[in-house]
Amino acid sequence: MNLPIFFDAAIAAATVNTNIILEEATSKHVVQVLRMQIGDAFFLTDGNGIKAEVVITATQKKRCEVTITSIENVAPKTSGLSIAIAFTKNASRNEWFLEKATELGVVAIIPIQTKRSEKVFFKEERWNTILVTAMLQSQQFYLPKLYPVQDIGQFFTNPAFKKPQQFIAHCMESNQKQSLSALMKKDSDVVVLIGPEGDFTSEEVQQALQASYLPVQLGHTRLRTETAAMAVCSLYNLLDEKS
Amino acid sequence: MNLPIFFDAAIAAATVNTNIILEEATSKHVVQVLRMQIGDAFFLTDGNGIKAEVVITATQKKRCEVTITSIENVAPKTSGLSIAIAFTKNASRNEWFLEKATELGVVAIIPIQTKRSEKVFFKEERWNTILVTAMLQSQQFYLPKLYPVQDIGQFFTNPAFKKPQQFIAHCMESNQKQSLSALMKKDSDVVVLIGPEGDFTSEEVQQALQASYLPVQLGHTRLRTETAAMAVCSLYNLLDEKS
Repeated sequence: MNLPIFFDAAIAAATVNTNIILEEATSKHVVQVLRMQIGDAFFLTDGNGIKAEVVITATQKKRCEVTITSIENVAPKTSGLSIAIAFTKNASRNEWFLEKATELGVVAIIPIQTKRSEKVFFKEERWNTILVTAMLQSQQFYLPKLYPVQDIGQFFTNPAFKKPQQFIAHCMESNQKQSLSALMKKDSDVVVLIGPEGDFTSEEVQQALQASYLPVQLGHTRLRTETAAMAVCSLYNLLDEKS
Repeated sequence: MNLPIFFDAAIAAATVNTNIILEEATSKHVVQVLRMQIGDAFFLTDGNGIKAEVVITATQKKRCEVTITSIENVAPKTSGLSIAIAFTKNASRNEWFLEKATELGVVAIIPIQTKRSEKVFFKEERWNTILVTAMLQSQQFYLPKLYPVQDIGQFFTNPAFKKPQQFIAHCMESNQKQSLSALMKKDSDVVVLIGPEGDFTSEEVQQALQASYLPVQLGHTRLRTETAAMAVCSLYNLLDEKS
């Protein structure tokens, strides 16, 4: 069923057959942009698995009232892809990656501060809006978890980021690099670490190897940071089809 | 060797040990932006396989003279991915796709006019600049072939677009859809047809099936047109690694 989906952070606390009033921005979108009418149905989600079907019971320009007709808990994925990425200095390229990674269903995004990457300013509100919009647009009910910026050293030692499969995509010459598509398993939690424009330092690559990261090659062309990260998300999402 | 690469449409006509003067825009980039000096080396390409190494012999602000020290013909790919895509109404999303598809090494991009897609204005010069920039940035020596806009009916009947492997990604419910990653072969020429925001019409899907296109599913989320196309480019590029 392809009903539109809207975001409501508080929907988890609601119960079936109760009435709620949507937030003003959502109300305006429903009433003025989509011109939905009394009796029209859509979904609300909190980005954490709630899928509530609602029907419009009253509309004004900036106020839309709905009745909740059903509430479902969408099961979380049993495994997923986390991307740890040294953001570029170009904010629009970073934001573009946040959108595409969300569309492609990643479960976590971890901005990494490396020696050669720009200082990352964590724009929590703006970035969350991008994630929410992309989640709704791609008809999902879970937001990726967006972590605060991690120093690369902390990242390697924090148990929260340890996964059964761990890969690092660096640009240094190496005969140890293997094919990500051959190694990556879809039934496993995977983390892939993508370097900055100037690449990781050799110390950082050594740290990764010591933390049991496997070096991988991403195709035959030299990819920009955000393209490499998005290509990995695509591969995981499309490989998923096999299982 | 990671010398920078610049574009020179006329380089195929040049011979080793001759001197040439770069175009003004390239000269300014070399001299003023990268601050390269007499004696510095880089590559020139025509985007059609020529890889000429040159050394700077004289510089002025807007004029850079070089000697050609070697000319190599990079072999073309023996197989590749063509993307046929119904462009969206959002020009920046289309241009973003052109950049990413080039980075990811596609051999051809065919803009398609479908019943439900916006009228596509073919911005040849602007789009070519995007392709050239992305080719140089990703250190390749071949430009993707960018075809003029094709009506979808013409597209199916034109022998130039027939490939050994042909796939269509549509959003209609169907139990015939298979996994692209399981079907797509890297040693084969492949064309993948990506629909517009409102999807193909059922007549267009029928035309595709009659033209021996196989319907495929692209992951579990609903992807925007340009994301779907880019995900296919990523899959082909990264799957390449296995061979």
